[in-house]
Formats: sequence, C-alpha cells, structure tokens
Amino acid sequence: MKKLINDPERVVDEALEGMALAHGDLVEVHLSPHYVVRAGGPPAGKVGIVSGGGSGHEPLHGGFVGHGMLTAAVPGAVFTSPTPDPIQAATVAANGGAGVLHIVKNYTGDVLNFETAAELAAAEGIEVRSVVVDDDVAVKDSLYTAGRRGVGGTVLLEKIVGAAAERGDDLEACEALARRVVSRVGSMGMALTSCTVPHAGRPTFDLGENEMEIGIGIHGEPGRERLPVEPADQVASRLLDPVVEDLDLGSGSRVIVMTNGMGGTPLIELYILHRAVERMLADRGVRVERRLVGNYITSLEMQGASVTVLTVEDDLVELWDAPVCTPGLRWGM
Amino acid sequence: MKKLINDPERVVDEALEGMALAHGDLVEVHLSPHYVVRAGGPPAGKVGIVSGGGSGHEPLHGGFVGHGMLTAAVPGAVFTSPTPDPIQAATVAANGGAGVLHIVKNYTGDVLNFETAAELAAAEGIEVRSVVVDDDVAVKDSLYTAGRRGVGGTVLLEKIVGAAAERGDDLEACEALARRVVSRVGSMGMALTSCTVPHAGRPTFDLGENEMEIGIGIHGEPGRERLPVEPADQVASRLLDPVVEDLDLGSGSRVIVMTNGMGGTPLIELYILHRAVERMLADRGVRVERRLVGNYITSLEMQGASVTVLTVEDDLVELWDAPVCTPGLRWGM
Repeated sequence: MKKLINDPERVVDEALEGMALAHGDLVEVHLSPHYVVRAGGPPAGKVGIVSGGGSGHEPLHGGFVGHGMLTAAVPGAVFTSPTPDPIQAATVAANGGAGVLHIVKNYTGDVLNFETAAELAAAEGIEVRSVVVDDDVAVKDSLYTAGRRGVGGTVLLEKIVGAAAERGDDLEACEALARRVVSRVGSMGMALTSCTVPHAGRPTFDLGENEMEIGIGIHGEPGRERLPVEPADQVASRLLDPVVEDLDLGSGSRVIVMTNGMGGTPLIELYILHRAVERMLADRGVRVERRLVGNYITSLEMQGASVTVLTVEDDLVELWDAPVCTPGLRWGM
Repeated sequence: MKKLINDPERVVDEALEGMALAHGDLVEVHLSPHYVVRAGGPPAGKVGIVSGGGSGHEPLHGGFVGHGMLTAAVPGAVFTSPTPDPIQAATVAANGGAGVLHIVKNYTGDVLNFETAAELAAAEGIEVRSVVVDDDVAVKDSLYTAGRRGVGGTVLLEKIVGAAAERGDDLEACEALARRVVSRVGSMGMALTSCTVPHAGRPTFDLGENEMEIGIGIHGEPGRERLPVEPADQVASRLLDPVVEDLDLGSGSRVIVMTNGMGGTPLIELYILHRAVERMLADRGVRVERRLVGNYITSLEMQGASVTVLTVEDDLVELWDAPVCTPGLRWGM
C-alpha cells in the first residue's frame, strides 16, 4: 500500500486537521465528535442542510460546507457510515431555527444512522426532514445497499438545495426541491483500478492488467460487468446510455452534467471523457445547460470516472448559478 | 497502460476540445495552432500574461487562463515544449496593446521556443518580456534542464502577476514583480508511482513496491534519492526542509504555501500532508498567510505531491487575494 498517510487509524482525524488548516476561513472542524460546520455557524432563520457518510470521497461532503451549499457535514471512518452521535451534533450545529434537512446517500448504515440522529435531534426540538439519494442506475441491491446506491447526484443536490436554503426557502420547500432533484438525477461510474482502504492495506478488488469495471460503486462495490479496457468514447457511451434511458432524455431535454473523477484520474483524461459525453448528448438533441468536470465524489485513489445527469428547468439552473463558497466548489463570490 | 483516452496521438486535441465544452464561458480554445485565450480576448490597455509548456500538468497552464491570471496559455504535446508558432499566436492573441509577459518554466526546449516566439512577436511590433521560473530546489541540471527546474512556483507566480496585470500594472512593473516572486519561491516534489506518457505506453520510470522518489521532476525526471516509503509527516519534512533552507525561512517569515498533488493522489492524503507542512512551518515560527491544497501542477496520473513556499509581504498577499476566475482557480467572483 503506497499512501501519503501516517497511521491508517488516524487518516480521517489528520485529514480533518489538515482541512481545518487549509480552509479555516470557510469551515470549522470538530474532532470529537467529527463534524464540519460552516464558519460562523448557521445563518439565523435559514434551513440547515446536513449531509455525511463514510470518508474517502473527498471533497464530498466536508468540502461542500459553506455559503450556498451544506451547513454541516459528518465524516465517518473511511467507507464507513458515521454513527448517530456526530450526525446529531452536526444537526444541532446546523440548526439556525428553521429546521434541518438531512441529505443521505442510500447505504443501509447511513440511512439507519441518519434516522436515529433525526429522532435524537427531534427530541431536542429541532424539526428534521430527510431525503435519500439513490441515483446510481448501475445496479439495485448492491453491497451495503437495498435499492440503488447514492453517488454523484448528491453533489448536484447539495449545490441546488444549499442555494435554496441560502435564499431563505423554508424546510418544506427545501425538502420538496430535494425530492424533485432526486427524482430526476442519474449516475453511473467505472473503474480502471481498485482503491485501497487504509486500514485494510490491500486493494478492495482485483482488476486484470487490461480490465475495467463498468457500474462500479464508490466503495468498489461490484458493477454491471467487467470488460477489456475500451477507448474513452466507448466508456462514455457505456456510462451515459443507461442514464439517458433511466431519465428518458430526448430531444429538447435540458440537463446539468457532471463528469467526475474517482480520485486517481487526471484532469486531462476527464476532459477527454467529458468531450464524448457532451457530443453524445448533443447528438440526441439534449441541451447541456451547465457542467462540472473534476474530482467531486471520489473513491480514494481509484482510477476511473462517473457521469451524472440532472434534468433541469430554469429554476434549477438559477439555483445552480447562485453563489457558492466552499472548499470544493466556489463561484460568484 | 490504463487510461481514459481514445488515440494516444489525439490526447491533447481531445482534452482541449473537452475543456472548451466544459469552460466555454471562461476561455476560448484554438486547435490550430494550439492555444487557450481568455474569453472575450485581452482587456484593452492591460499587459497580457502568457505561459505554456508540455501538456500533462493540468490544470496548469490552460486551466489558469481567465480574469486575474493568464491571458493565454500554450499547451505542447504531452511533456513536450510547444513550438514557437503557437507561442507567437498566443502572444498576439494576448496583446491588449500594453505588451506581453512570458512566464516560462525552466526547461531547455521551453526557454528556446519562448525566446524565438518573443522575437517573432517583437517583429510584429509587440513588446515582450520574459521571466524564467526555476523554483525546484531538488536538483540542478536535470534531464531537459540546465539549472533548476520550473515547477509549482509557476502557479503562484501566474496568480500574482495575473492580478497585477488585471489591476493595470504596466509591463515593466509586471516583469519586476515576476522576478521578485521567482527570487523568493522554492518547491520540491516526490512520487509514490510513475506516470505513463500516452504515446510511450509504459511507465516513465520504475519504482519498487515499497519505494518513493524524493525530488522527482514533473516529467518523472530523477530526483535526489530513492527511499523506502515513509509516513506522510517524514515525507513532508523531506520536501519542506530543503525549501526552508533555500529560502532561508525563520521566525517571522511570512509565506504562501501550496501543497500540490501530482494527479493521482487523492485529496484526503493531500490534507494529511498539508497538516504536517503547516505544523512544521509553525514550529519554525513561520507565518502561513495563505495556502492552496489540491491538484494544480500535475504529472498525468502520478501518485505523489509537492510543496511550494513563497515568501511574501502585504502587497503580494493583496495580489493573491484579488479576484480570480479561471477553470482551475476561482475566488472573489
């Protein structure tokens, strides 16, 4: 295992300490229990948006805390759901008096622990609503998941609902918006190489010298099929086609697209993949309103990529364009 | 070779096409000859800032074109200097009537070709000044280089001089500022794995299962020594100590620090390395005024990192904080 780490058991703590040093102007990092909250705390009278999950997907979620996106985030151990305690603490810290929305990726542990935390927070008088993201069209009922997995759609959801909360939408409106986004977002990913969980010390799965896995999960969960490595254009088609079908996209559809790297894939390759994605959407008459290309939801050092597509109308584009100021996503301020 | 590419010979063209699709609001991409220029062209009456070099280091340089940073950038083939023609074309495209400053990383081919292009542009009546960056403290007279190599310091230089040009500093002032930055910036890098140049198809160098290379160049040029992999804190010390010595930093020094990934290293590891860097600087009484943590000057999919330190006073911090709006670096707008 070759990693820039010290102690495998201290990876999350030390990364959070590094993040606090790097981005102390934007976020406050708490280590006991672990959570990241917007610097200065939640804006009074606005809905708090809280997400979280296992670490190893950076910048998701802690890197999306700040103005116009998440109010707080809860990092678990690497690829491990956070327990209810830190989720509850983050929920309390994110409460500006207008309630808190939980954004939960659909993994069994996350769903259960966010539920428990919501009950604990409710007992303290905080109104909590919860939305589960299940955008991965690759497989149903995967390792760790009943139903579809939550992946890249979470990034787009956090941006859009964060913008709504920032402009003052109430809890009910934020929840309805989140459900609307979840109902129209789809993703699919692939891997050229495995990742290695630090405390495991060996690759999560084995891929042959010339193999790739299509439909991979962000924890290395099995996908749809294992194939010989293909040119980027064919890979793009294998990722995009099932998403297009799932969302029933066609001529006149309007979308936001994310071409996302898994952590070990360089930008030069992501641009090549993104080129193919945009061309294929254009060929189908789909209009790409906005796009994001880079490493936003990763799987440690995995080489690979995913494509996420969200169907939008004007109001969602407007929320997308609203200013955002977080360590991982920043524009308009 | 596992890469998300189509034809190894088309990597730069297709990545540029993808970049054009991803960032058409910020940059204009030209394919014949290859250069990237700020959308809307150079601001009239302001100094144009042009850089360039081999591709494979993204987001450097094309990703730093836009408001407050580069006016234009010239991407060569992967790890290959651009020829004088596209540099000349970019220089013409970046000329807003107040002259053009070339920022050149110290590689023999880059230096020669930028020189020739500057002469060609001068023959067209454009005043061109040139500054060579040689911040890599690891080795002198490396593969491709006489003297020290130009690496991460280039990112900080482009930001700071770009801000000066944006506020209207004249060519002489921009050149003097650039020389000041070059004289007080130092970097050192390391690799856990090699990169693979697409048209070569095999790793540039071999590292054993448990080996790392300290002082690596951004094209995989040999560094100072090959050692067994160490914990991140020791790696940080191996990178930072020579830079601190080179810059003669001590109690009361004020710096901007970049902890940079080589392309294949995930953010969670960069934060752990950055934590060590900040702690070591604090132990020496050095005050870190600003920092940047992420993948800014890469070596394709290489796993590894580099540390860059720039000594600053208030005026440089002010230029650092000035708004920047490029694909790869963005704040304040």
